[in-house]
Amino acid sequence: MPDILHRIGIKSSRPEDAYRALTTREGLSAWWTQDTQGEGGVGGAFAFRFGAGGFDMTVVELEPPKRVVWEVVDGPDEWIGTDVIWDIRQEGDHTVILFTHRGWGEPAEFMHHCSTKWAAFLLSLKALLETGTGRPDPDDIKIDNWN
Amino acid sequence: MPDILHRIGIKSSRPEDAYRALTTREGLSAWWTQDTQGEGGVGGAFAFRFGAGGFDMTVVELEPPKRVVWEVVDGPDEWIGTDVIWDIRQEGDHTVILFTHRGWGEPAEFMHHCSTKWAAFLLSLKALLETGTGRPDPDDIKIDNWN
Repeated sequence: MPDILHRIGIKSSRPEDAYRALTTREGLSAWWTQDTQGEGGVGGAFAFRFGAGGFDMTVVELEPPKRVVWEVVDGPDEWIGTDVIWDIRQEGDHTVILFTHRGWGEPAEFMHHCSTKWAAFLLSLKALLETGTGRPDPDDIKIDNWN
Repeated sequence: MPDILHRIGIKSSRPEDAYRALTTREGLSAWWTQDTQGEGGVGGAFAFRFGAGGFDMTVVELEPPKRVVWEVVDGPDEWIGTDVIWDIRQEGDHTVILFTHRGWGEPAEFMHHCSTKWAAFLLSLKALLETGTGRPDPDDIKIDNWN
């Protein structure tokens, strides 16, 4: 089954800042969507809402400040049951994040869209950590006619 | 084998403009890399050069203004023998491009990087076609410590 893969590097010596941006409501709402609810311990849940819908995630694994894994429990059919995996490590003067969205059924057009949209949000995460300002929904980078 | 998938939509009623940006030296050098050589008929070849290296592509399929397929004949080991496929169609007031980079061996870290970097260049292509100005190398969006 195909995965969505991405890699970003943040000019930072503090991987714990990236970890915090992925595990707290305050952090997530500053780069992904302003309408983020929930809390981030293992077994906790986040509800991410966008203009057109949203996703509910359960936090299934945490290893500070190295790894975060969510399971999608509600949202578009194609997302339910997939995992979103964040691996964080320090490499010289960059905090590197390897991103994997695993468990897609088919490489349909919606998966193409989500791959590009994840990249746009990862650039938002990078901007947040480097400059203090991200581009969370509804101020996100629009990539196509599905937004 | 995993693929890199992306989708962008350009606010335009002219899919032939997207096709031209993917099949001419002038177009390619305005969104991917300024150091682009070659010509784009079937069987033709392009040489794309960046600071750190580059790619040689053979044009293996053209269907104006709907489809472009390149085969990678030289470049990083992971790229050689892979195909880059561009499917273009008009959808309302957007020209939609489905992008597939097919034939990767393993989902190694370099593939994560290339996936995000392709997204950055596709946003450059979208900007070129919407505003007249792209961000080709060396003015490209830097995504990580590999650039």
